[in-house]
Amino acid sequence: MTKSAACRAFRVLAPGRYNGRPAEEHRLSQPPSHTLAELAESFGLRLRGDGNRRIEGIATLANAGNSQLAFLSNSKYGAQLAATAAGAVILREENLADCKVDALVAADPYVAYAKVAALFERLPAAAPGIHPTAVVDSGAKVSASASIGPCCVIGNDAVVEDGVVLGPHCIVGEGCSVGAQSRLVARVTLVTRVMLGKRVLVHPGAVIGSDGFGLAFERDHWVKIPQLGGVRIGDDCEIGANTTIDRGALDDTVLEEDVRLDNQIQIAHNVRIGAHSALAGCSAVAGSARIGRYCMIGGNAGVLGHLELADRVTITAKSLVTHSIREPGEYSSGTPLQENRSWRKSAARFKHLDDFVRRLAALEKDKNDE
Amino acid sequence: MTKSAACRAFRVLAPGRYNGRPAEEHRLSQPPSHTLAELAESFGLRLRGDGNRRIEGIATLANAGNSQLAFLSNSKYGAQLAATAAGAVILREENLADCKVDALVAADPYVAYAKVAALFERLPAAAPGIHPTAVVDSGAKVSASASIGPCCVIGNDAVVEDGVVLGPHCIVGEGCSVGAQSRLVARVTLVTRVMLGKRVLVHPGAVIGSDGFGLAFERDHWVKIPQLGGVRIGDDCEIGANTTIDRGALDDTVLEEDVRLDNQIQIAHNVRIGAHSALAGCSAVAGSARIGRYCMIGGNAGVLGHLELADRVTITAKSLVTHSIREPGEYSSGTPLQENRSWRKSAARFKHLDDFVRRLAALEKDKNDE
Amino acid sequence: MTKSAACRAFRVLAPGRYNGRPAEEHRLSQPPSHTLAELAESFGLRLRGDGNRRIEGIATLANAGNSQLAFLSNSKYGAQLAATAAGAVILREENLADCKVDALVAADPYVAYAKVAALFERLPAAAPGIHPTAVVDSGAKVSASASIGPCCVIGNDAVVEDGVVLGPHCIVGEGCSVGAQSRLVARVTLVTRVMLGKRVLVHPGAVIGSDGFGLAFERDHWVKIPQLGGVRIGDDCEIGANTTIDRGALDDTVLEEDVRLDNQIQIAHNVRIGAHSALAGCSAVAGSARIGRYCMIGGNAGVLGHLELADRVTITAKSLVTHSIREPGEYSSGTPLQENRSWRKSAARFKHLDDFVRRLAALEKDKNDE
Repeated sequence: MTKSAACRAFRVLAPGRYNGRPAEEHRLSQPPSHTLAELAESFGLRLRGDGNRRIEGIATLANAGNSQLAFLSNSKYGAQLAATAAGAVILREENLADCKVDALVAADPYVAYAKVAALFERLPAAAPGIHPTAVVDSGAKVSASASIGPCCVIGNDAVVEDGVVLGPHCIVGEGCSVGAQSRLVARVTLVTRVMLGKRVLVHPGAVIGSDGFGLAFERDHWVKIPQLGGVRIGDDCEIGANTTIDRGALDDTVLEEDVRLDNQIQIAHNVRIGAHSALAGCSAVAGSARIGRYCMIGGNAGVLGHLELADRVTITAKSLVTHSIREPGEYSSGTPLQENRSWRKSAARFKHLDDFVRRLAALEKDKNDE
Repeated sequence: MTKSAACRAFRVLAPGRYNGRPAEEHRLSQPPSHTLAELAESFGLRLRGDGNRRIEGIATLANAGNSQLAFLSNSKYGAQLAATAAGAVILREENLADCKVDALVAADPYVAYAKVAALFERLPAAAPGIHPTAVVDSGAKVSASASIGPCCVIGNDAVVEDGVVLGPHCIVGEGCSVGAQSRLVARVTLVTRVMLGKRVLVHPGAVIGSDGFGLAFERDHWVKIPQLGGVRIGDDCEIGANTTIDRGALDDTVLEEDVRLDNQIQIAHNVRIGAHSALAGCSAVAGSARIGRYCMIGGNAGVLGHLELADRVTITAKSLVTHSIREPGEYSSGTPLQENRSWRKSAARFKHLDDFVRRLAALEKDKNDE
Repeated sequence: MTKSAACRAFRVLAPGRYNGRPAEEHRLSQPPSHTLAELAESFGLRLRGDGNRRIEGIATLANAGNSQLAFLSNSKYGAQLAATAAGAVILREENLADCKVDALVAADPYVAYAKVAALFERLPAAAPGIHPTAVVDSGAKVSASASIGPCCVIGNDAVVEDGVVLGPHCIVGEGCSVGAQSRLVARVTLVTRVMLGKRVLVHPGAVIGSDGFGLAFERDHWVKIPQLGGVRIGDDCEIGANTTIDRGALDDTVLEEDVRLDNQIQIAHNVRIGAHSALAGCSAVAGSARIGRYCMIGGNAGVLGHLELADRVTITAKSLVTHSIREPGEYSSGTPLQENRSWRKSAARFKHLDDFVRRLAALEKDKNDE
């Protein structure tokens, strides 16, 4: 997509006007623009070069142009610094000598980039008010400053607090609440007894508060266990697209504050995830497991039910956690990728590993008996 | 969430009134409440203690209060029995002596708990009738006792039987049918040629009847294979949130009765799953595989295409089934979790496992030749 | 489902009429029907037998009746050829002698079947026009030949080109575009800055253009990295149900033409997938990875971030790609399925594999020292 197309794609919408307004009314006349001096001042960065240089966007070292800002955080990309056509670069002190263009020096260029980039993000319009196609139960409480998009459905006893944005097709079920400044991007479903904290961001397709998977086996068939608990999501959490979080059987499923979930994650009933933990895409946590604070769970990793993970545990991608972990550190399972023919040989031998070790032990015994 | 909030969150809705009704009209004046004697009588349990004690809810042994019922099924929680503040506990005969409060004695306390808990479940309102924002094709047949929620879309030749509840945003595509007393919680999509049995429960985000993944490779590009079959779901099945079930290429994809699917499961085209089998979250079954009756598939386990699993096969979490299984039993693949540094060593050795075994055999041969 | 039910389930809808039309008006009086001679002519197949035979559907060798066409591609099903009751069979020259019914001879019967079957596919009605319940921003451009279903939401600066079909509940976010003849089956969400090529097919529940998972860690909490890029999907791509494709952090996430994604796939930000590659269900590609052309990724396989895969690389199901792959070929990881008791022994030994190899080396050294 060209830059101009990206600019055209967003605009500030006049309050209360989703539709039918004159086309000119809702476009920004200018893309955002900031001088290097302003950026240095706002984010506590040291400026080297022309403070009056205007920055109109962010791009990679390889692609940035004269009016754009790039950043160097991963030393792997250091070689690109010399050749960059960026107007300026956010970097560490130690890379300053290799930079021929203007620079903003940061202790952590990645964090500085994250903050500067936020100035250039243009979110879809979200005017306060309730879209005429939304269905809001008379027993719901919706703040006047909230923006409720097309086809949203808000149930009885639901609460939507100040500044909340519900994009199109969100469902806030009976008895759910959405904390101030939270944003449900589009087509998010809160089923029932779901409490979101403040500034929670939920991406499309996420389902929160669905029935936990509880079954009792009676003789020859399953009996469903009603899921009477709820879900509590702390402040500043982020929930990825098509992620599912079940509500508890009796107690609640809980995410503490600042938990970050990527897409297509499955959180079963009665799980508790400690503050500031981050889970990558397609990972899954089974029922009643407890994850500590500041944990990192890799893509498609899994945690079995009823286990406990201490704080600051890292699980690598596609690993399965089969026992509780008491010590911080990095943990893994699985085998490395091999060319298929070679892998087949390893795999065939794996099945008989116990035999091989016994044979090895027998040889050792013979040796010792000699 | 406090208990009172949970009570407020649900109510019986006056028929035909989703919206705009007086707030007092739709609340239960009292939460449900049952005496111990009533519960004993209803579920064939033996009562010890005060039959007039009123039970107003269910909770865990650790959290239950005086008016709540707890249960002891897993002996791991036996220690909590002595200290519980519950009004009464459902338990086995053998635990009765250790219980200081009133008790209901059950052969299987977990099954008894499941049944009693159902009395205390309060489902979102579902008044018979079609919400004014729903779009129902004139060629669809919808029972007068069905409840069709906001923004539902029902296509031509679709059939919705007696007592069905479609929560908000459900789509029942052309030619699909939903059997009596089934419940699509919210935002469920039945694409086309999908037949649900009676009392089927489908959670939000599920997609049933999407195209199977069929492709023929012609010279340098893919040719799509039309998916002309359908999906048949038996009575009493449950389908989890964001689970997907593709329709068949020529014949149908089939779930027999009482199959239980957790969240984010993928069932490919022409799969057949036998009655009473249960699949945990994020598991997947590839095209034309046949799973027997009473099978249990663990979380994120996979079954390759065209395989057959006998009845009563259990697959542990994250295992991959790469060949047909003829005998009941438990099957696994994968490696155990290790501290990452230790795992790296094992993993590096795995690649050369065949060599090691050859070297072992050479030593054994030398030994025997001596 | 019976064949007659399947026939009833589809019809051609009169243009501009989703609802409220007479029931007779929208049904095909006849199912599609073609003579063998017509089929031979259309698809360049050699006819053996009665060119006037009318074919009214496709079925498997085992289930086809007299008016249906079957096919034989996989030699595994060769035994069914002799017994088939099909009216005719598509097959290879070499199988012709074993076929007692009429036949269409093809160089690749699977490709021929795919093409013939398309004649018998009857898609849900899609009349040009905008359904009255759809919400289309005044700043969107929608072709008069496009069909916009119930409850669709189309944002400002969005473009919907000629012949596009949006089934019910699709969301085309601000600044997104949908190329000519594309079809979003139902409930598809394009979040923002998403460009679909021509003839793209997207299945229900897919989310394209959601935020990439970008976080910078600052002292004791996460800082979100705004996702300023978009997504570009090439012509003739197919995107499965509940699949998610994140938009780029700065540059775009890209699928080249004819890429085929099955259900529940996760494509992270800034991934690039080469033309004609196909990914099976539940696979996942982490951020900034580059997949070559004509690659095949098996079910639930994963590719770590920032890796590169050459053209024509095949990854088997549930494997994890942990390093870049420079050579075409087939690659795998994992261990084979075992009966659980036996697997436990192998797994326990795997943890000490490095020790065993050291012990083996010690024995060898002793041997050599003798």
